Amino acid sequence: MQGESMYALAEELFPICRSITGNGVRRTFEILKKNCPQIRLYEIPSGTQVYDWTVPKEWNIRGGYLADEQGNHIVDFEDSNLHILGYSVPTDQTLSLEELEEHLYTLPKQPELIPYTTSYYRERWGFCMSQKQKDKLKPGNYHAFIDTTLEDGSLTYGEVIIPGETEEEIFLSTYICHPSMANNECSGPALMVHLANWIEALPRRKYTYRLIFVPETIGAITYLSRNLDVMKQRVIAGFNLTCVGDDRTYSMVSSRYGDTLADRTLHNVLQHHYPDYKVYSFLKRGSDERQYQAPGVDLPVVCFCRSKYHEYPEYHTSADNLSMISAEGFQGSYDVITKCIEALEYNEYYQVTCLCEPQLGKRGLIPTVSSKDTSLEKKAQDIKNIVGYADGKIDLLELSDMIKVPVNELVPLIKKLLDVKLLRIAEHS
Amino acid sequence: MQGESMYALAEELFPICRSITGNGVRRTFEILKKNCPQIRLYEIPSGTQVYDWTVPKEWNIRGGYLADEQGNHIVDFEDSNLHILGYSVPTDQTLSLEELEEHLYTLPKQPELIPYTTSYYRERWGFCMSQKQKDKLKPGNYHAFIDTTLEDGSLTYGEVIIPGETEEEIFLSTYICHPSMANNECSGPALMVHLANWIEALPRRKYTYRLIFVPETIGAITYLSRNLDVMKQRVIAGFNLTCVGDDRTYSMVSSRYGDTLADRTLHNVLQHHYPDYKVYSFLKRGSDERQYQAPGVDLPVVCFCRSKYHEYPEYHTSADNLSMISAEGFQGSYDVITKCIEALEYNEYYQVTCLCEPQLGKRGLIPTVSSKDTSLEKKAQDIKNIVGYADGKIDLLELSDMIKVPVNELVPLIKKLLDVKLLRIAEHS
Amino acid sequence: MQGESMYALAEELFPICRSITGNGVRRTFEILKKNCPQIRLYEIPSGTQVYDWTVPKEWNIRGGYLADEQGNHIVDFEDSNLHILGYSVPTDQTLSLEELEEHLYTLPKQPELIPYTTSYYRERWGFCMSQKQKDKLKPGNYHAFIDTTLEDGSLTYGEVIIPGETEEEIFLSTYICHPSMANNECSGPALMVHLANWIEALPRRKYTYRLIFVPETIGAITYLSRNLDVMKQRVIAGFNLTCVGDDRTYSMVSSRYGDTLADRTLHNVLQHHYPDYKVYSFLKRGSDERQYQAPGVDLPVVCFCRSKYHEYPEYHTSADNLSMISAEGFQGSYDVITKCIEALEYNEYYQVTCLCEPQLGKRGLIPTVSSKDTSLEKKAQDIKNIVGYADGKIDLLELSDMIKVPVNELVPLIKKLLDVKLLRIAEHS
Repeated sequence: MQGESMYALAEELFPICRSITGNGVRRTFEILKKNCPQIRLYEIPSGTQVYDWTVPKEWNIRGGYLADEQGNHIVDFEDSNLHILGYSVPTDQTLSLEELEEHLYTLPKQPELIPYTTSYYRERWGFCMSQKQKDKLKPGNYHAFIDTTLEDGSLTYGEVIIPGETEEEIFLSTYICHPSMANNECSGPALMVHLANWIEALPRRKYTYRLIFVPETIGAITYLSRNLDVMKQRVIAGFNLTCVGDDRTYSMVSSRYGDTLADRTLHNVLQHHYPDYKVYSFLKRGSDERQYQAPGVDLPVVCFCRSKYHEYPEYHTSADNLSMISAEGFQGSYDVITKCIEALEYNEYYQVTCLCEPQLGKRGLIPTVSSKDTSLEKKAQDIKNIVGYADGKIDLLELSDMIKVPVNELVPLIKKLLDVKLLRIAEHS
Repeated sequence: MQGESMYALAEELFPICRSITGNGVRRTFEILKKNCPQIRLYEIPSGTQVYDWTVPKEWNIRGGYLADEQGNHIVDFEDSNLHILGYSVPTDQTLSLEELEEHLYTLPKQPELIPYTTSYYRERWGFCMSQKQKDKLKPGNYHAFIDTTLEDGSLTYGEVIIPGETEEEIFLSTYICHPSMANNECSGPALMVHLANWIEALPRRKYTYRLIFVPETIGAITYLSRNLDVMKQRVIAGFNLTCVGDDRTYSMVSSRYGDTLADRTLHNVLQHHYPDYKVYSFLKRGSDERQYQAPGVDLPVVCFCRSKYHEYPEYHTSADNLSMISAEGFQGSYDVITKCIEALEYNEYYQVTCLCEPQLGKRGLIPTVSSKDTSLEKKAQDIKNIVGYADGKIDLLELSDMIKVPVNELVPLIKKLLDVKLLRIAEHS
Repeated sequence: MQGESMYALAEELFPICRSITGNGVRRTFEILKKNCPQIRLYEIPSGTQVYDWTVPKEWNIRGGYLADEQGNHIVDFEDSNLHILGYSVPTDQTLSLEELEEHLYTLPKQPELIPYTTSYYRERWGFCMSQKQKDKLKPGNYHAFIDTTLEDGSLTYGEVIIPGETEEEIFLSTYICHPSMANNECSGPALMVHLANWIEALPRRKYTYRLIFVPETIGAITYLSRNLDVMKQRVIAGFNLTCVGDDRTYSMVSSRYGDTLADRTLHNVLQHHYPDYKVYSFLKRGSDERQYQAPGVDLPVVCFCRSKYHEYPEYHTSADNLSMISAEGFQGSYDVITKCIEALEYNEYYQVTCLCEPQLGKRGLIPTVSSKDTSLEKKAQDIKNIVGYADGKIDLLELSDMIKVPVNELVPLIKKLLDVKLLRIAEHS
């Protein structure tokens, strides 16, 4: 089982201070490449125009703290990288508590927790702290010190292309821009490298696989600005992977119209894997599915999560730590996505090769004595239903939906029926 | 607010004895034209063939009563014009109670009320009275006197055409043939003239407006027999307005298949305006939607009511008096229909002009600090959803349905996005 | 009423030992032909290849028993033809109880009943008995004697073709291969011959009727292998009739996609005839609909039952005897199928011949006084709805569904409206 290995990788990624650019991202890729050397890195210079956006200056941080008049550090980057507002400009000044106020970010409804807050596109500096910490601040002067740089540099992203028999692609995306939070988002990259290795090891791949690790929003937009044309021609289904390490539930965010092959595949798998899974409409989008499903982009992509971002209380706080995630949580995500990939790989239009029911008994596929109590083994019943519905007009996903059997249970039976030439793959336009 | 003005107009119309032809209709139009001089009147001669029907003789009434042997007037036209059976032929005779019986119309289930009863297409005479009144009649002779004329003349209807930028039309219809009943139907004409004035005052009209005031059934058929060809080419949506002055609920009668643009528009507006609105299928049709949606006519028309005809107890009785209607009731109808018109005027296929999400923050359309607690203002969220769904493939009504925001709240945001060129109007075939 | 006559015929068929081939089938046809001389018989030789199957050797039985050491007959074919495993090869040998074990068939969950068991396609012999009988067997030797023949011969089926005005066909199928069980399946053939006579007696038939009596599975496959091409061109709707003699409920097994004309017709009739009818998906198929709806065969056929096979406790046991069925049960099935046929015969696309509502009053079709309390007779309301919906775009079944009136109540009204030329039959492609 890969759950333990994914958890261990997430643990290793956890301490790094990542942002949408900078060396935290590069250190993250160094670790990922130890597990998945085939990741190819790209550096896109600051100032590059990407659709309606511009690649920002590169941000790096060495440290930072807020100190009182006695020099006590109220909050310090060393304690938690969440304490510094993401993309803070450097500062080194003394202010009164009143002046400091607008630079402090808290969560009044979760007074124990440090919020994760950023200001990528307007220059600010600030400290994030728990409401309790803030409440203890007494009038007086404070020393705000933030040692960051915001300079021309580049945005870093990673890509793995795993070729298959055809140029048609299955697309997986996750992001590598969040600092020390576990489910959101050390989990996505940890899952992704394990998926990459599983896909590489498949004995046969019909499809080519495109796996990307990008900073959220600006990274997805940057990636699309360089790859959209080819992706629109090739991608048949895609999954945005985020918050995939906890074990509370399973969730998906549907595509805009909820009708892509990715929607159908994930519904099909989840309804058998975890029938109580949660479906969120595109109105609840929030991660990079926002770009992949933007009007005109229209890639057939859904978002897959265990507990969906925005929906679990620890989201975007210091409580999204390593106790949020588990080997079991990872394993569940891994199982779902590998089942989706298997379903897509075998999602052909199958057709029985004879008219009327084939005589399954003479092939040993069903019993030869007929009696009311001869309850068919489930597999025999499944075989009867496959040949009873495989008319070349529905794909395997729809066949699975109609006969209410998971695709992963159908695949071995389909292979057997192809072998004895009772099934063939139909042309389909 | 126009509610008071509409109520005052209905009050003025109330006393007049109208029928499907005759001077009551003409007096009604005199009053309406004071408020809406642009109404153009048409007179269609008796005997004119209109599809399967013939314009009937013109009916006029000077008075009538039923008197007992002592000369006491049991019922008298002076007291209520409902007392005389609509389209009664003249009579002046003495009959026994037994002979009189077949000429008396009552409502046994509502014994206090005078029914509204007519016999347009078979010559009869009769009196309508409360069951209580009838129960008091003693054996003896009675004098039936009805002073009417039924002669060649004409059927009168009114029409307002308000031109717009295109020849495509929005159609509104109401009727002017009911005697002294308030909701059904002094309310429809009172609303209609106020709508006409609102439409005239619009700074811009994409559509041309066709508003008609006709006697029910025969008038709608007559109108269609003279205008159907052009209406089939031009009308994109229409609303039959009846029983629009009370304030108990909101109702619609769907088109035959429930799928016209008029259905979609009225559903969209009512689901936000009054979520508990009542939807009646075309099986419950009863007003002029019967003609507009007849097979082969097939105009995209629905019927709008507050309390639907046939469904409120005062319907077609003397209790449908001025206490049934109110300024508030009228205002609600006015608001709904003007919202429908606004929705239709702006019902384009909008499309975002950039790939991926536009950077709304740099345009001041959403906040530039991102934190879990930064709850977006509703308008910012609506803007994100507009640009997240505006793919040029759905019209504004469907966009509104998908993002669950009323069209009238979307229109100002759409205008702003058109201004900053983040949206454009897509071609749509 | 035909219920009694159908019951009497089923009673006459009941004692015969039928199987998928042999003289029991031929004796059954002798009886059926007394009621329906137009049945034409076909004999298909053993060894004939029919799609994936081969017509088996012909099986005949003279008798058989299982005796203990004292010569007492434990079970005997004379007592019930269910005692001998269907298609048993001959045997005459003495065995120990232990050796006998694998040749005994019982129903442990219904210990009083003899199961109906067969082994058509693998040579076996065996006895079927109640679990109670088996439990009484003491250790010792037993004499197994089965006097059957399994030799080259033929498979027998019957067909009735009743010509109509067009070559388009309505198809009815039932089976004649079950030994002494009443509902499954003396009922189907008994119903079928009465339907044949009713169809023959129709004053007018638009459609040609194809009625077949076949052994289940192999017979349906054999029939299709000889007739599929013409049936695919001609059959517009078909019904497989089985278990049609009890009176517990009404059931249907839908076609694969549930959308054929046969599905629509049977739903339409049953929803009015017996609103609590049961609908089973094609996943619950089990009778010859398995062949008629097999992928590539795709005939528009559903299965009709009272209590569905597999779903009533007496199914495939000795308890499916004459007490299971009744004249009332048969009558219900007869009424449903004749209603379906009538619905199909009149299932045209009707269109009103005038624009706007026709003036029904002048034709005496609705009252000429209009008042709130003038409740229309149901027929008048139905007529208004027919002309309000008959747009030439929906067939009579959909019209019936939309206006919620059974087709059999609509047909006389449709005829009247055709007579007065307010309706016509529209061309429809």
